[in-house]
Amino acid sequence: MAVALAKCMNYIKTSAVREILKVTEQPEIISLAGGLPAPELFPVEEMKAVTLKVLEEAGSSALQYSRTEGYEPLREHIAVRMSRKFKTRYTQQQILITTGSQQALDLTGKIFLDEGDVVLCESPTYLTALSAFMVYNPRFIEVPTDKDGMMIEELERILATTDRVKFIYIIPDFQNPTGRTWSWERRQKFMAVITKYEIPVIEDNPYGELRFEGEILPSLNYLDTKGLVISLGTFSKTFCPGLRVAWLAAQPRFLEAYTILKQGADLHTSSLAQRQVAKYLDMYDFEAHIQRIISLYRKRRDAMMEAMQENFTPDIRFNIPQGGLFTWVELPVSIKANELLVNSLKSKVAFVPGDTFFPNIKVENTLRLNYSNMPEERISEGIRRLAQAIKEY
Amino acid sequence: MAVALAKCMNYIKTSAVREILKVTEQPEIISLAGGLPAPELFPVEEMKAVTLKVLEEAGSSALQYSRTEGYEPLREHIAVRMSRKFKTRYTQQQILITTGSQQALDLTGKIFLDEGDVVLCESPTYLTALSAFMVYNPRFIEVPTDKDGMMIEELERILATTDRVKFIYIIPDFQNPTGRTWSWERRQKFMAVITKYEIPVIEDNPYGELRFEGEILPSLNYLDTKGLVISLGTFSKTFCPGLRVAWLAAQPRFLEAYTILKQGADLHTSSLAQRQVAKYLDMYDFEAHIQRIISLYRKRRDAMMEAMQENFTPDIRFNIPQGGLFTWVELPVSIKANELLVNSLKSKVAFVPGDTFFPNIKVENTLRLNYSNMPEERISEGIRRLAQAIKEY
Repeated sequence: MAVALAKCMNYIKTSAVREILKVTEQPEIISLAGGLPAPELFPVEEMKAVTLKVLEEAGSSALQYSRTEGYEPLREHIAVRMSRKFKTRYTQQQILITTGSQQALDLTGKIFLDEGDVVLCESPTYLTALSAFMVYNPRFIEVPTDKDGMMIEELERILATTDRVKFIYIIPDFQNPTGRTWSWERRQKFMAVITKYEIPVIEDNPYGELRFEGEILPSLNYLDTKGLVISLGTFSKTFCPGLRVAWLAAQPRFLEAYTILKQGADLHTSSLAQRQVAKYLDMYDFEAHIQRIISLYRKRRDAMMEAMQENFTPDIRFNIPQGGLFTWVELPVSIKANELLVNSLKSKVAFVPGDTFFPNIKVENTLRLNYSNMPEERISEGIRRLAQAIKEY
Repeated sequence: MAVALAKCMNYIKTSAVREILKVTEQPEIISLAGGLPAPELFPVEEMKAVTLKVLEEAGSSALQYSRTEGYEPLREHIAVRMSRKFKTRYTQQQILITTGSQQALDLTGKIFLDEGDVVLCESPTYLTALSAFMVYNPRFIEVPTDKDGMMIEELERILATTDRVKFIYIIPDFQNPTGRTWSWERRQKFMAVITKYEIPVIEDNPYGELRFEGEILPSLNYLDTKGLVISLGTFSKTFCPGLRVAWLAAQPRFLEAYTILKQGADLHTSSLAQRQVAKYLDMYDFEAHIQRIISLYRKRRDAMMEAMQENFTPDIRFNIPQGGLFTWVELPVSIKANELLVNSLKSKVAFVPGDTFFPNIKVENTLRLNYSNMPEERISEGIRRLAQAIKEY
């Protein structure tokens, strides 16, 4: 015999983004490639106070094994907050705490996918979600999108002609990579189609609370009459990603399956981390903290938009995001973003070429830019250098 | 269309142990069923100091996203400790931090298993490991064991006649559920067979450092000439399970695959928890802490053994474990442990029936007992009640 790995290991490679991020770790590079929150806003002092309080009040329980479902007071906080902000109707018992949203994505693949099953996603989409699903050997079908979300006629055409569609994966608010947000009308039409075909929907919403302007739109769960929507949320973008505390909300028929498989995946999410987050929510004004993040990211978004307006030629199009961490640039078709990256790295600026975010189709003239992780002047300088690299291309 | 889950969801059920544990949460029940560490030994005060220090020195990094491989100083601590205690030859770069050993088990299934592949395991074995593998639809073959470990002739017979054996899962030290430890001779013979057939070995060792008497035996990695052994370790039994910090050590051909799939599973283990553990190892005498656990569990083991010697009739056999958290009882074949449990719950004592730990074969007259989680007098009282329930059966 000889050592053999599972089939999936033949086509799962380390992500291109991860490799680019390694290159850009050198401090002299202005990296618009990553997606890190601004660490200067992490509530370090509050975390000290919170941890002391948790260990004082319940040290043994905070360090012991705990239930797979999660810490009850945290589940309650989440159910209440989601309902207030996104008009969801999930109860506390319909919340499962996960080890980052990435775990919720991994469990989603496990629960739904056998080899050859079909996953629908936006085109482009968040590729690290697809790497979680890829382990289960599915087929991905990209649904075309425009500035308002998935194109509904295309979605319906695909659903009418495709077997074994197990679920649809979408990010309706400030999408990664495009920064776009689905319109209210598009959400309604989408849910009408979903309800007709009875397809489970994974609504991934890590950025929704980081809205710079305009009104928050309701979760798809608000429009869900058949219990098809599974909503993912996280504290990684509004609090601290290093803690790995996120959640998934779903009807019992799904939530029970997720809970059983989470038990097999890591038993439970850190008891201490769950209590730290819950205690923070008890002791501090979380909404004020989120407002500080919004103010900072709004300034950085503005800096990036201004720099692009000043430095980019009119044939370069970009999205002006109303929230979140990213924007999306469409170059003239003659420019290949992968080749541009080689040039721009010479002038010490990095980005992620957009082709990474399309699972099947080949789109070479797009790129994703991040503005959450550095001061305005560095963003402006980065865009100037990028514009220069484009000019020289 | 209709909502459909993956095939595996038809036969993955919530674990029997989990259901029993729910029943035994009532405080009036003496539960010998669980497997929890003694919470009175958790270093609560030290955790306060450690957390303040980590947040003081590196607050932003401790709360930010971090590398999938893990926090370097922690990987170094682990490589050094494993080598000192178990004579392993893993370098720091061959350690991957995992979110509990349960995650390492889940990733193992992902990396190796396609539907119909074969997993060999001890009979009986730790069933929550098998639930992690079960998602990938393998076939389990139990290798018979005696008091010294797997029976090598049986192992060789199975390997000679079975296709698609992807790996062997074993717990050589103070096994869950039996509390047995493989002899040195058996380890050598086992590795000779493994080397001949080139089968990857998952050596799960959560209890090895909790040895009450005798000498620690080397890891199978010490005998591994072909890089086949993948070793799992954890801080859950020697430090705090609530933090979910564990590790996996393997040669690069495996470690790279694990790292890529861990990225898809949860990006990385809590940055803060990893730094808390590393800082504890820097600031305190971890070996002295482990000695305190050993002293306590040895007393509890002794209490259980004495009570069994006093109260059990000679036709009831049990193992005297040299370490770890569990012992294993063999009742006369006429007694069904599942029926006995119903009776013993009436007298407010709980255990886990042994049939849970056999994936295929039917063994009804065994049970697992835990002694780590309660004071000696409660253990003695529990055993008296259990002996009475057996008598009344």
